[in-house]
Amino acid sequence: MILNAAQLCKLLDGELVGDGEKKIHGPSQIDKGRPGTVTFLANPKYEDHAYTTKASVLLAGRSFVPREPLSLTLIKVDDVYAAMMFVVEKFSKNGIPEAGISDLAVTDPSCQLGTDISIGAFSFIENECSIGSRSIIYPQAYIGHGTSIGEDVIIYPGVKIYPNSQIGDRCIIHANAVIGCDGFGYRPNEEGHYVKINHVGIVIIEEDVEIGANTVIDRGTLAVTRIGKGSKIDNLVQIAHNVAIGDHTAIAAQAGIAGSSEIGDHVRIGGQAGIAGHIKIADRIEIQAQSGVHTGKFPEGTRLFGYPAINYLDYLKSYALFKQLPELIKRIEDLERQLATTKKLSE
Amino acid sequence: MILNAAQLCKLLDGELVGDGEKKIHGPSQIDKGRPGTVTFLANPKYEDHAYTTKASVLLAGRSFVPREPLSLTLIKVDDVYAAMMFVVEKFSKNGIPEAGISDLAVTDPSCQLGTDISIGAFSFIENECSIGSRSIIYPQAYIGHGTSIGEDVIIYPGVKIYPNSQIGDRCIIHANAVIGCDGFGYRPNEEGHYVKINHVGIVIIEEDVEIGANTVIDRGTLAVTRIGKGSKIDNLVQIAHNVAIGDHTAIAAQAGIAGSSEIGDHVRIGGQAGIAGHIKIADRIEIQAQSGVHTGKFPEGTRLFGYPAINYLDYLKSYALFKQLPELIKRIEDLERQLATTKKLSE
Amino acid sequence: MILNAAQLCKLLDGELVGDGEKKIHGPSQIDKGRPGTVTFLANPKYEDHAYTTKASVLLAGRSFVPREPLSLTLIKVDDVYAAMMFVVEKFSKNGIPEAGISDLAVTDPSCQLGTDISIGAFSFIENECSIGSRSIIYPQAYIGHGTSIGEDVIIYPGVKIYPNSQIGDRCIIHANAVIGCDGFGYRPNEEGHYVKINHVGIVIIEEDVEIGANTVIDRGTLAVTRIGKGSKIDNLVQIAHNVAIGDHTAIAAQAGIAGSSEIGDHVRIGGQAGIAGHIKIADRIEIQAQSGVHTGKFPEGTRLFGYPAINYLDYLKSYALFKQLPELIKRIEDLERQLATTKKLSE
Repeated sequence: MILNAAQLCKLLDGELVGDGEKKIHGPSQIDKGRPGTVTFLANPKYEDHAYTTKASVLLAGRSFVPREPLSLTLIKVDDVYAAMMFVVEKFSKNGIPEAGISDLAVTDPSCQLGTDISIGAFSFIENECSIGSRSIIYPQAYIGHGTSIGEDVIIYPGVKIYPNSQIGDRCIIHANAVIGCDGFGYRPNEEGHYVKINHVGIVIIEEDVEIGANTVIDRGTLAVTRIGKGSKIDNLVQIAHNVAIGDHTAIAAQAGIAGSSEIGDHVRIGGQAGIAGHIKIADRIEIQAQSGVHTGKFPEGTRLFGYPAINYLDYLKSYALFKQLPELIKRIEDLERQLATTKKLSE
Repeated sequence: MILNAAQLCKLLDGELVGDGEKKIHGPSQIDKGRPGTVTFLANPKYEDHAYTTKASVLLAGRSFVPREPLSLTLIKVDDVYAAMMFVVEKFSKNGIPEAGISDLAVTDPSCQLGTDISIGAFSFIENECSIGSRSIIYPQAYIGHGTSIGEDVIIYPGVKIYPNSQIGDRCIIHANAVIGCDGFGYRPNEEGHYVKINHVGIVIIEEDVEIGANTVIDRGTLAVTRIGKGSKIDNLVQIAHNVAIGDHTAIAAQAGIAGSSEIGDHVRIGGQAGIAGHIKIADRIEIQAQSGVHTGKFPEGTRLFGYPAINYLDYLKSYALFKQLPELIKRIEDLERQLATTKKLSE
Repeated sequence: MILNAAQLCKLLDGELVGDGEKKIHGPSQIDKGRPGTVTFLANPKYEDHAYTTKASVLLAGRSFVPREPLSLTLIKVDDVYAAMMFVVEKFSKNGIPEAGISDLAVTDPSCQLGTDISIGAFSFIENECSIGSRSIIYPQAYIGHGTSIGEDVIIYPGVKIYPNSQIGDRCIIHANAVIGCDGFGYRPNEEGHYVKINHVGIVIIEEDVEIGANTVIDRGTLAVTRIGKGSKIDNLVQIAHNVAIGDHTAIAAQAGIAGSSEIGDHVRIGGQAGIAGHIKIADRIEIQAQSGVHTGKFPEGTRLFGYPAINYLDYLKSYALFKQLPELIKRIEDLERQLATTKKLSE
């Protein structure tokens, strides 16, 4: 959506000062303003920026009187914060596809499609899928055979979903994420060659889950890889086969969970952290970035750090001394020298 | 493929008890049964689950007599395990495209295409490619100029292959993997600006290799990046330019191999591990997850751990003492105090 | 492009010896020659390879006289290195799309398109985008609403760009990279459920930036995620929301920068390294692979290593002693024993 300043002013019930024709397509911060955006001045200490910002329109309070000429259009409003929230909300819909199925998408008659859904060009929906009402499939997505997608789901461009996956209501899956591929499972034969284990399980993603761009979630071997409701997964994360993630758990970018591990509810996993396979992480555990967790023995709520991970404060204490090891070794050498002397003296 | 219970019963030469119309599209575990799936009861200790599972059909032995009413359809067979293996195999083909080239795919007349291949909608095959018989290219794949793909290969949706790559027979490449992109090679000029080094080498992937979703393999600078036969690479792995991976080597998710390194045969690399550039890893080395290997000096079969990686047991021993550093420092302080006292006494 | 030996010989103003019909599509190294390629012999010590290489054509000096029969075609030239550079350059254009907009691409009349651009099949360009002259959009790319792309840009297959992104002149974005997706930002409510924070900021990528395959760059929350001019980013890298990367900075594969951090100019970040959020990294800092940088306190040009990262040499010194901890503990035990004896003696 693109509005001009006069249209926006009317929506905000404001007072226009300057060019009403200026076009805007989104909001920006006053010190980082861009042409074509609307910014705001709520705190007088930022007033200097009003005279230098590259934004096209400025929202300010009714009583604001510029002490220098303004090059941008001014809209005076009663409540600057409320107006700005309105603006953010207004333009947040920009670029979102309208309802409708593109002539350039492939869908099969065997699919069950809800009302007001959008399927973009070059998307491919295999047989026996169901897609709930108001869900949006952007262009270039692939939805494998027998997959069910809930209501109000957003699937961004290039997402690939393997067969028989289940995606809950209100999930958001970002571009080029892959859901339901085969797990990394092989049996070595007598010669040490790997024989592939068929993966016939599925992925279940419960409602209100968000999954980042280029993240990968493997399907179960025989059973289910499950992401609990309300959990949020960042970009480039690896979730291996048979993993179960609890509810309202957050996993930051580039973290990885190895096969068959269970992660509790309200767990927080930092970026690039790794969780070994076949362990169980209790509820509300916090894992610092880059840590490697090799055991599930830590109680609920523990904060972990290190490689292998231990209690956060213990790791910091040991690491502080690790940095002092060159001094410690000198103290030990000193002790050895002194003791040798003392021994001679006392002989 | 979807079968009803009666059809499956006939295929298994079994005895049907209950509704023969129940539809099934795959297998599941009895304690994690899902509607539309068939599960099995081989070990009597799991019988309780038979009365609560959500699966639609249950396979059990000829002699099985339920002690409570069953809500699902029962099929009695001679050998429950054999029947279940048949079922897993049967449905593992579900969602696999049939042979044929989609009208919505682009292929060039200069390509050599084998028999019984499948090319999905919105896939793009550039000039001078060859694709061996029975290979499957799912929708939305890109196969660059001059690429050769062997027989019985599976290329999942969204895979992008840069020009002149060579993919061996029976390889499997999972969704959104990228093969053959330029390596990270620049020359800084006098001002410290990076000047791109052209990458005109190629990628050769030998037969029976499997490559995970969103994994990236760079092309060689002038020569070849090579993945040896039978090697298995998990999701989100980085293989840099000029790397050579041996045969039957396994690389877990999110591991990375820097430029020009050589990895031996039957090597096992854990998740998130990193291998420095320009080193050579001997055969059968095992690298623990998250380790950072900076040297190729370790002999065949060594197990490595740590950052930088050392012998596995050595790392564990040192790390055990790292955790005790706060106590060690106290012992050193204690020694210092005692020695001071002793010296005074002996003076 | 494919040339035969006679055509190449003419372009190089050389002397042809052997079959002029041999077809070539690229260069290779003499010890790793491939059929269909041209290789070169400049240093006599590699002459043996000339009789065994699988390349189809050999470039050598005017005075070269083979001491054995050659199976490949020979082209004699004045300056072998200059000829080889010409060949590398010549074939580096292979597989690059010609100018033109595919009938199978979707573009909107509201887009501003420069001259001599290429847009490949199954690419989707949303409303209000602009694409500069001579830029190449490969097949299967998605360019979101309001995005501006400079001149001479290359967007490889499967790249997904979210709305309102800005891509500078001469940028290269490799396959399946994702630009401008929502950052990982939530507010927990009273029950510990995550409420999504709308991301209405943008991504600005300045000129001459290269971005690797499957890399992800999040959009700003309200403002901008910025990549400075001339910076180079490898594959599978994570750049979080509101990050600012300086000019001529290099970031190796699988590294991650957490939200709102600022990275200086000419910084070098090793593979799998992690930078914490909300810190500022000074110019010309060098971060070793897999390091975790938690503070911005290090001065310009510092070399960092470790987890958390400290000065490179300090880390090496401490780590050398970490490996000796099992011996150190023995020395401490020895001191304790000796001191006990000494004390007894002096009593």
